[in-house]
Order: sequence, then C-alpha cells, then structure tokens
Amino acid sequence: MNPFRFHNPTVLYYGRDQMEQHLVDEIRRFGTKVLLVYGGGSIRRMGLYDKITRLLEDGGIEWLELPGVEPNPRLTTVYKGIDLCRTHNVDLVLAVGGGSVLDCAKGIAMGTKFDGDVWDIYSRKAQATGALPLGTVLTLAATGSEMNSGGVITNWETKEKLGGGSPYTFPAFSFCNAENTFTVPRDQTVYGICDMLAHCFEHYFHPTPNTTLQQHLIEGVMQAIVETAPKVLEHPNDFDLRETLMLSSTMALNGMINMGLVGDWACHAIEHEISAIYDIPHGGGLAIVFPHWMDYVVSTNPSRFATLATEVFHVARDGRSDEELAQVAIAKVRAFYAAIGAPQRLADYGIGAENLEWMAQQAVRFKPIGQFRVLEADDVLAILKAAL
Amino acid sequence: MNPFRFHNPTVLYYGRDQMEQHLVDEIRRFGTKVLLVYGGGSIRRMGLYDKITRLLEDGGIEWLELPGVEPNPRLTTVYKGIDLCRTHNVDLVLAVGGGSVLDCAKGIAMGTKFDGDVWDIYSRKAQATGALPLGTVLTLAATGSEMNSGGVITNWETKEKLGGGSPYTFPAFSFCNAENTFTVPRDQTVYGICDMLAHCFEHYFHPTPNTTLQQHLIEGVMQAIVETAPKVLEHPNDFDLRETLMLSSTMALNGMINMGLVGDWACHAIEHEISAIYDIPHGGGLAIVFPHWMDYVVSTNPSRFATLATEVFHVARDGRSDEELAQVAIAKVRAFYAAIGAPQRLADYGIGAENLEWMAQQAVRFKPIGQFRVLEADDVLAILKAAL
Repeated sequence: MNPFRFHNPTVLYYGRDQMEQHLVDEIRRFGTKVLLVYGGGSIRRMGLYDKITRLLEDGGIEWLELPGVEPNPRLTTVYKGIDLCRTHNVDLVLAVGGGSVLDCAKGIAMGTKFDGDVWDIYSRKAQATGALPLGTVLTLAATGSEMNSGGVITNWETKEKLGGGSPYTFPAFSFCNAENTFTVPRDQTVYGICDMLAHCFEHYFHPTPNTTLQQHLIEGVMQAIVETAPKVLEHPNDFDLRETLMLSSTMALNGMINMGLVGDWACHAIEHEISAIYDIPHGGGLAIVFPHWMDYVVSTNPSRFATLATEVFHVARDGRSDEELAQVAIAKVRAFYAAIGAPQRLADYGIGAENLEWMAQQAVRFKPIGQFRVLEADDVLAILKAAL
Repeated sequence: MNPFRFHNPTVLYYGRDQMEQHLVDEIRRFGTKVLLVYGGGSIRRMGLYDKITRLLEDGGIEWLELPGVEPNPRLTTVYKGIDLCRTHNVDLVLAVGGGSVLDCAKGIAMGTKFDGDVWDIYSRKAQATGALPLGTVLTLAATGSEMNSGGVITNWETKEKLGGGSPYTFPAFSFCNAENTFTVPRDQTVYGICDMLAHCFEHYFHPTPNTTLQQHLIEGVMQAIVETAPKVLEHPNDFDLRETLMLSSTMALNGMINMGLVGDWACHAIEHEISAIYDIPHGGGLAIVFPHWMDYVVSTNPSRFATLATEVFHVARDGRSDEELAQVAIAKVRAFYAAIGAPQRLADYGIGAENLEWMAQQAVRFKPIGQFRVLEADDVLAILKAAL
C-alpha cells in the first residue's frame, strides 16, 4: 500500500429515532441558524420535512430554505445557496436528501467560505479555503456523500460535470435512518445499488501493490451489496435490508476500505461526460459503462477479476485459469445488473453515437484517466462505442 | 444491527517517513510540552528514541519522560504519569511503543483531567471528564489502541486487570510505520497476531441480528490476518507483510467493522483474570482461552462457526451440516494457533488449577459475561478447567 493519512471526522448516526434525539444538539455545536437544503417534494410527502422543521422550531433553531436541488445538482443552485448563506449569516448547512442534495450542500458550504468562484475549486484552478459546517439527513443509499468530503456538481453552461471536495467538507454529522428510504422508487433504488457497487469496483481495480487487507474489505462490502440488493427490491419496506444497503453505501466511499490505495475512477470520469450531456442518472450510467470497461481492461490483470468471481460471486475455481475465471466474473457482473433491472446499453437512454468523440475528449481533458489501466481518448471512445 | 453512533477522530498515518514529516506539526496543534511515555529499552535500541527526541528538539518541543511502562501496564505507572503531567503542565502525552504503552498513556491522559482516583473510571465507579490530548508512535501490531479510545490497566494491589476508556481518549494522531515492528521478537509478534485475531472473534460471535455487512468486513480482516501471519513469521523484515498485519490490527479494533453490533468479549474478560494473577502475555492467554470457549459455546449458533470455516479458512462445504463445519472451524483455529507457535494450554505457562475458582468468580463480579452466550461463574470455570 502507499503511505497514507486517514482522517474521517464525521459523526455517523444509524438507526430509528436518532435524528429526533440528537439533531438539535448536533446543530447547536455550531450555532442556531441553518440553511435547509433539499430536492423535490419527496421529503414533504414522506413527512420528513415536517418532522425536521418541528424539531428545529422546538429546538430554537432558525432556518432558511433552499428547495429544488436537481438530480445531478447544478452550479446555479450552489450559487443560490452561497448567496443565502452569506446574506443571512447561516451557521450550518443542513442537507436533507440523497447524494445530489448532499453534494450541492457541500458546494454551498465550501463556496460560502471561498473568496472567488466556487467552480474554480471543481475545475482544479483553486483549492478550498474552508467551509461552513454541514449536517445531513440521508434519504437514499447510494453515493456515500454522508461520510466523505467529496461531491459532484454539473455546470450546465459548459456541459461539465466535475467532482471536487476538500478536507473541510466532511459532514460534521449525518443521520441515516433506513426508514427514510422506504419510499425510494424501484428505479432510484437500483441506481443507488449501481452507484455503491461502482465505488467498490473503482477501489478494487487498482495497481497498488500489497493490499491484501483492503481487497478483502472491499470484497466484504461487495458481497453485502450483491446479497442484499435483490432482496431489497423484493421487500422495499424491510428495515433491515434497507439498512444493510445504506451502511454498505456509506462504507463503500468513506475511505475506510481503500486506505493506502489509488482506485481507478475511469468509469466515473466517463459516466460524468455522459450525464453532463444527457442528464441521465449517475448509477444508470455507471451500470452501462462498467461491463464494457471490464471487457476492455481485463487483460491488464485477470487475477483481480478472478478473485471477484471467487470471493464475491462465490464461483468455485474448478481448476480454471485466472483468464477463464475473469470472464466468468464479468458475466456475473452483467447478470447482476440484469437481475436488478439496471440499464445495460447507452441505447436504453436513447443515446446514440453523435457525441461519443466529444465525450471521449472531454473525459481526458485534464489528463489520461484510470489507474488499473491508463486510458487515453481513443480507449474511452472504444469503450463508449462498445456501450452503444 | 442496533442503532449506533460512530465517531473516530484519530488522524491515522501509515507509511515510512510520515512521523519525520508530520510529528512536530501534529504536536503543535496542542502545545509545545510533551510527556514522552515508553516501555523498556527497545525504542532506544532500534534508534526510534533518538529519532523522536531529535525531531522534538529541532521542532522546539519541550519534553519530559516516563520510561519503563510494563507489559500489562500498572496503575502505579499511570499515577506517576499523572503526577508528571500535572506538575509540569504538559500539553500532550506522546506514547511510543505497543499497546501497553499506549494504554498506559490513555490512563495518564484521562487521569490528569479527572478530579479523583483514575482507577474509579476503570472500576466503573465514575466516568471520565476529559483527557489531555494524546499522540502515538506505534511499534507493535496487536491491540489497535492506536485508533480507539480504550485501554487496559492492571491494579497489582487488588489483582485486577480492567479495561476502560472514554470519548476523550482517542489518540489525536497515530504514526504507524511498519519498519518500527521489524525488531519485534517472534513470540511478541505471535502474541500480537493472537490479539488482533481475538478482537475479530469477539466481534464475529455476537447475537445482534442483521449484520450481513459487518460479518463480511470482519471476515475480511480475519482473512488478511490468517493469510499474512505465517508469512510474517518467516519474513520478519518484510515491510509489506508487517504493514498488512499492522493495518489489520488497527482495523480489528477501531470500531469500523463492528458498527451497530455488540461483540462477545467473554474471552477477554476471562484472559484478564488469568493475566491479572499470572502476568502472562495477553495474546498468549487469548490463544489459550478461545478454542475452549468455542468448544463450550458452539451449539449456541453453529452456523456462525460454519461461515468462519467457509469464508475465512476457505473450507468447501461439501454438503456438510453447519454442525459439522463448525467443528472444522474450531479445528482450523487450533491448527492456526499451533502453526504460528501460540500457546495452547494454561500448563504452557505453568498455570495449574489453584486459582481457577477465584478467576471464574472475578470474571463475573460485575455481571455475567459474554453476548454470544451469556456465561456465569460455573461456565467460566468449565472453560478454564478445559484449558488446563
């Protein structure tokens, strides 16, 4: 493994009623004025909005609101939030929603304490200089944003979707009550599953030597996802299944299972280019890209794919070579996506060949992408074409 | 899983040269006067003492010293440290050593900020009210004390060995350079391996429902330990192997793999009674107790033992029942201990039947122990007798 520094300061709450008991105290560590950031109407429909605002009111917490955060949250919404925080001297940003809402809130928190255009941080022209404290109430198991410092923002003007973060943007606290995910529709649940599994894949396929422990930890999270996902889709109101999935999504991207290794992240980069143009669900895009990426890079290290087959999908080796087992692993990944009803081709979203070259160029515009195998624009184009 | 709150604020450094680059800055977050706590002469022999004191000197950090911390660190040593910290207004306790040194330093840090006898915290009569900041430089892969808030102290007068901790006693930072474990003797390396594996067992055998993810994470750490241990003993100067073992010990007890579940901890309680009287190595005592505990409790949930066989020791099921596989698992555990040369019976330390009843009574003096199966004094006595 590589030398590393690990620090994850988020206070993580799981379980029923934790928010009811601790939200106000957690907020009061930082002040009494909150910007409540949320998305569409789902938190109102499920009663979560009422519950939270009642807690705030009873706890003597003043709040402003920024509703309407988009899936693939937009830079313009981040700007709105920054304005609100500055104008009203907000003490803490409280994000209630899924990864998009949380990511937007991170941009707001970081931008409020940045003397300049927050987009410069996402486009690697500047580094964050601080952030407002951030708290979250999670309503979707997917991105892991509840316990990490990163977030993805879309600049609709420039058609760019970029990830960014800072040591300042770990949530100070996150409340994860699986009940709040019962009403997540089937397709969103599927996208969340694809997203958390993709995070595991990004960690698992890497060139860092000496990662025995990390590989097994990543395999552990993947096993939990693969075992739980089909059951959740059958029993969407099962608290235990929803909670296992939620904690899997948190663990998949809070830095604990990938200490000291550099993950691949090529598929995320490619997917960002697709959804920057077509505004498709992130998890859906990842499910489309990954199997084709796997086909393209498998020869780089077939043994890594072989252990995916044996350790995660419990395929018996039966005397087969790594190369043979690697093909079994990729088939198993495809079968898993098919079983949960994830999209499998760009055509499933009506995407044709028209922008592939642009996307391939954009994906590598900062530098070549990927670690397991380094990809140039040509490679990305080949993967995208295979995914048509 | 149970509702839980997780917060681990330790800044964890792994790799060569991290201490050289960051130690002084980390200390300076808290002040400029340090109590340097260490054990025997090993840190001097390996040059670590010189390296650290040079860093402190060059960095303008003043220091006092408390050398001579014992294996199974003693309350009297904790008292000495508290006196030093109070008399000299120390800003931070810097522990350099293995788990014993770190645990002693935690007692000192906690006791300095406690108005009363720090032993009252360990004997459950009082709760900690604060602690001096604590930093660590780890020289032994074993206890996980570098990234958790607990520690074990022995009161030699009352023949009690008790674990205690507080939210205040997480190390603020820990430097884990596997090079610092190259000179750990073979038997100490073995005890460390037994200790970290025991922590995994304590988590793994529990009655909490719905822990799919946690079980897989614990299996991941156990696999890494079981695969790496025999190799480390053959190649004690192999950085990669030592580092994998070190990170396994950190992950085994930093709270991440056991979120939301209540581990068993009966074997630790029993071992504490043995070493409180006989001052044997903690890891050695655990290796003796665990297989006999397993024999005693296996019928409570054979399927948990069956997955230990299949997932950790990679035993093919071959149509066997959980009960049959459970016996295979216990045999595998015994074989692992034998292969690394761990002690297997109390007789290996010259311990006879003379104090077994006292130890059994003492083990349950606060309340019955264990979660996987609740044990009364009779049960503990039966396990101890089997271990003779």
